[in-house]
Amino acid sequence: MAEPATRRRDGKAVEAVVRALAARFGNRLVTAQAVREQHGNTTTWIANEPPDAVVFPQASADVRDIVRICAAERVPVIPFGTGTSLEGHINAPFGGVSIDFRDMNRVLAVHAEDLDCVVEPGVTRKALNEHLRDQGLFFPIDPGADASLGGMAATRCSGTNAVRYGTMKDNVLALKVVLANGEEISTARRAKKSSAGYDLTRLFVGSEGTLGVITELTLKLAGIPEAIASGVCPFLTVEACCDAAIRTIQAGIPVARIELVDALQVKACNAYSKLTLPETPMLFVEFHGSEAGVAEQSRSFGEIAAELGGGPFEWATRPEDRSRLWQARHDAYWSGRALRPGAAAVATDVCVPISRLADCVVATQRDIAESRLLAPIMGHVGDGNFHLTLLVDLADADEVARAKALNERLIARALAMDGTSTGEHGVGQGKMPYLTAEHGEAALDVMRAVKQALDPTGIMNPGKIVRAG
Amino acid sequence: MAEPATRRRDGKAVEAVVRALAARFGNRLVTAQAVREQHGNTTTWIANEPPDAVVFPQASADVRDIVRICAAERVPVIPFGTGTSLEGHINAPFGGVSIDFRDMNRVLAVHAEDLDCVVEPGVTRKALNEHLRDQGLFFPIDPGADASLGGMAATRCSGTNAVRYGTMKDNVLALKVVLANGEEISTARRAKKSSAGYDLTRLFVGSEGTLGVITELTLKLAGIPEAIASGVCPFLTVEACCDAAIRTIQAGIPVARIELVDALQVKACNAYSKLTLPETPMLFVEFHGSEAGVAEQSRSFGEIAAELGGGPFEWATRPEDRSRLWQARHDAYWSGRALRPGAAAVATDVCVPISRLADCVVATQRDIAESRLLAPIMGHVGDGNFHLTLLVDLADADEVARAKALNERLIARALAMDGTSTGEHGVGQGKMPYLTAEHGEAALDVMRAVKQALDPTGIMNPGKIVRAG
Repeated sequence: MAEPATRRRDGKAVEAVVRALAARFGNRLVTAQAVREQHGNTTTWIANEPPDAVVFPQASADVRDIVRICAAERVPVIPFGTGTSLEGHINAPFGGVSIDFRDMNRVLAVHAEDLDCVVEPGVTRKALNEHLRDQGLFFPIDPGADASLGGMAATRCSGTNAVRYGTMKDNVLALKVVLANGEEISTARRAKKSSAGYDLTRLFVGSEGTLGVITELTLKLAGIPEAIASGVCPFLTVEACCDAAIRTIQAGIPVARIELVDALQVKACNAYSKLTLPETPMLFVEFHGSEAGVAEQSRSFGEIAAELGGGPFEWATRPEDRSRLWQARHDAYWSGRALRPGAAAVATDVCVPISRLADCVVATQRDIAESRLLAPIMGHVGDGNFHLTLLVDLADADEVARAKALNERLIARALAMDGTSTGEHGVGQGKMPYLTAEHGEAALDVMRAVKQALDPTGIMNPGKIVRAG
Repeated sequence: MAEPATRRRDGKAVEAVVRALAARFGNRLVTAQAVREQHGNTTTWIANEPPDAVVFPQASADVRDIVRICAAERVPVIPFGTGTSLEGHINAPFGGVSIDFRDMNRVLAVHAEDLDCVVEPGVTRKALNEHLRDQGLFFPIDPGADASLGGMAATRCSGTNAVRYGTMKDNVLALKVVLANGEEISTARRAKKSSAGYDLTRLFVGSEGTLGVITELTLKLAGIPEAIASGVCPFLTVEACCDAAIRTIQAGIPVARIELVDALQVKACNAYSKLTLPETPMLFVEFHGSEAGVAEQSRSFGEIAAELGGGPFEWATRPEDRSRLWQARHDAYWSGRALRPGAAAVATDVCVPISRLADCVVATQRDIAESRLLAPIMGHVGDGNFHLTLLVDLADADEVARAKALNERLIARALAMDGTSTGEHGVGQGKMPYLTAEHGEAALDVMRAVKQALDPTGIMNPGKIVRAG
């Protein structure tokens, strides 16, 4: 068997690859230190591990060539979208070539009748929605950041709309993927469903570039709803927020967004976004449907909230009123950071069965207080998923240690509740240590066997998810 | 490398396995000819290939033992639910042991707050829904037959409700699976979403027992809607039916079922179910929601139908009126058969992008007429998926040849429209010849590599989906 890419770091191989890529791609191959560092992890406490070079393909034929050139020398390839992932997915711990999809940003087709579109991986979600707006369509997955669709698929991301529209796994119809041998495959056709063999689409969604490089996506679209209503609803406790979310979903109200914001995060939003919300746990909610439908949904939700001592629930259908609220929700990461200027914002997320969510959030709040840390909480509460933004002074070793220990306890708590160590941020480097506890060694062996089968020399984004071989 | 199970048919190995299983399972191991034949394919023109023995496990520990005993002698194992699959999935072309899940039929847990449940693979969908009814919950996937949930997951089935509730891939949260080495894994936890590594759940859903044997399922549930409205709507043409479906979905009307029934099938329903429907193409539709919601949806649909020259659309919310209609829809397989008593009913299905559906159905109807065959058509038209029930005299070689050729042209037509050779029936033996045309050799190589990695000796339901090694 060939020596895997992760067991060697061969300067001569890298030199040969850089030479071959420069010959093929000219100034679309960059080795400048600053550019390389921009292409390593920059978003959390995971150290920056820059690649040896960055290349900017313009078509899938370029990607095939890049992978072939790297495969010949067993040099790693690391796909790069917008660099907004949070668990070190884009780091190059074994060196290698970052493939930046910035220039593969074309919307190739929109099939309005079929409610689908075909895009290159570098298209961002905002660019796609801009492109679609005139046709009354939108792509519903919204992770907050203006991420690339290739990156969103690779990390199996989701976000605020997932409670109604699902995650990337539910909204990717088909992918084109360049394999470790440089061949390109299509994972499926454009039919809305199929039972024609193993689900290769779902195998690559969430595989974080470790099995292949995504070069094209066929995505499901939704019609822009006739009416949208949204609003905020304060509650006395986090438990009441969670109970309201459970009852809303059980009542079959097709809520489009239902977001828990804890008191600390509300305070942050008020300060940053110039709002005057009561500083108590609350739900941001949104309903999509007909005029009559969203009015009915809003009323039903208001009744549920009132039964649980929450409210008043004030909802708005005017776009300008709605935008202000959701802008504040989207800016939560920034407003959270503004609570402690100069601190690093370390984002982590877990997901538990919704019946355990209140327990999990309350225990986590207590843990934050006992750990003498500052960490506002927001949650996609309809899915049982919540985020901590740990505000940490990275220069303070003791504080960093307390934050890391808190994150570990958070994950252990979620796993003990039959939850997952990562609801929507992926594994990358940051969550690798927890996969054994989550899946068990035998299931991880299956992942390793798949990795080994598809990437026998270990060149595909090595050091992420599982180590093969 | 060990000689694969598919290259040998070793009488001594089978004897040894039967002896070991009899010692372990007593009279739960059956080798009677009639029982073996019941466990081979019985539903279409694919020949019956009975297993060497049938065993009835009562717990996952039994399944682990069965697989270990078979693995030691490299004798195939073939999981069996209710035997209602249509493409020869349960046949034993290389002999082996059929694992019949009849006795693993317990609902292990219902988590009403989380809208999920945990079941053994032998629970049928009707038994589950019976169990859930008192709690106001239901499992929405309805393939027509009262199939086992293990079989439904294994074939990635869907059915009439898929347009609103998705297919099995969307409604399985987690599986327990016994691998080829006899080890059992869990594919995921009970959290509603996760991005913790490769999507093993979706890898096993639709793998038809070729990668492992499902021993437990965690399923998503839905609340029984407050109100249900349904009705039939006649149209002048199949095209108008398809256009109405497209516009309904584009308008964001959350239709729960939207079923095309062609004129021949309407005739069959009238005769068999004592209805007096106009014998013209029509849509059977159903709406789920609040009282006001289903009324609004029904009105909106009626307006769309009228714009396309269809209607009148008469809808009912009384359960007895609704049941009569949907019973006729569910009996369509039997009413279709009654069009030609004594003939075999050969079911096939394809799925295309919805914009191509009308073209595909009309061309297929023409082809049926030109082939001098009788084959009513029904379709899950909201998904672009339709079924032919070919009524064939299996004793007439010429007719069988014409039917086979028709099926091949049907598949070629669907593939040419960017569709799939099997929308919801799986691959089994019947659709294997078409996977190269559908996926391409490089994508099939990925499937083969996964098969080889997880089942290196080829004992897991060999001769289905792909041949490894």
